[in-house]
Amino acid sequence: MSLDNLKDLLVEQLQDVYYAEKQLVKALPKMAKAAGSEELRVAFTDHATQTEEHVARLEQVFEALDTPATAKKCPAIEGLIAEGTEMMKQEGASAVRDAGLIASAQRVEHYEIAAYGNLKVFAEALGHDDVVDLLDATLTDEHAADELLTEISSSTVLPAAVAS
Amino acid sequence: MSLDNLKDLLVEQLQDVYYAEKQLVKALPKMAKAAGSEELRVAFTDHATQTEEHVARLEQVFEALDTPATAKKCPAIEGLIAEGTEMMKQEGASAVRDAGLIASAQRVEHYEIAAYGNLKVFAEALGHDDVVDLLDATLTDEHAADELLTEISSSTVLPAAVAS
Repeated sequence: MSLDNLKDLLVEQLQDVYYAEKQLVKALPKMAKAAGSEELRVAFTDHATQTEEHVARLEQVFEALDTPATAKKCPAIEGLIAEGTEMMKQEGASAVRDAGLIASAQRVEHYEIAAYGNLKVFAEALGHDDVVDLLDATLTDEHAADELLTEISSSTVLPAAVAS
Repeated sequence: MSLDNLKDLLVEQLQDVYYAEKQLVKALPKMAKAAGSEELRVAFTDHATQTEEHVARLEQVFEALDTPATAKKCPAIEGLIAEGTEMMKQEGASAVRDAGLIASAQRVEHYEIAAYGNLKVFAEALGHDDVVDLLDATLTDEHAADELLTEISSSTVLPAAVAS
């Protein structure tokens, strides 16, 4: 695919994040199962549900752009998920592994914050206001998910990890 | 390596980001070479120099923790760099490719923001104040690099990409 105009790039980047969100729908329940802290388990489970909404929202974006919803294999999310999987399998203290799972999950959240931030400015530059609103809704969710993980880390997980 | 305590996790995560920074020292000059916009080229070149400082700062952190500076292969940064490399090779309009390079680079910046953010709270929880200051200095650089890319995107690259 040749990137001849900004719409081409918008579509290419949508395909990338569509693939990423679909992979995360599968990965997040595994993260939840690996979490030792109940609070963290609930956060991962809730975010899995929210990620299904993000997939549906991307399908609305593809439709608004009159483009088929296609996922493009994205090596970055594969690597990010591989790191999370490695952390799940780590031997050691439960609270320390939880702190590691949070570190992995926040790398993913930040990947998405960067991806949706760029998608949003591309859509703004192209004057696709309906698409901007959809992308902004998910961007807000990703920021909130990242902040929730920081809160769980500081209030519950890190105090337990220090005591390990 | 078993993660028996938070220091183990801090060291494991330092090894991961040490690997990432070393890979970026090699990748950023290639990003600079691929950039069409002079402003973007300078930003990537300057950030390559800054990344060398980040490597040196991490070596100071390892030393302060009395641990050898070891890099641990990190699949996430490999995937992120692979995406950037793919973008460099894209056919199409120069300004559109520049917008894609910025999107790739901001994913990397956000990876590092998440990584250093976690490292900093781990070091804080362990009471390693000297290490906190070193990590915070790099975290500040990564935020500034991310903001500079947003500025270049909105002021120069996106207006040119829309006109492509």
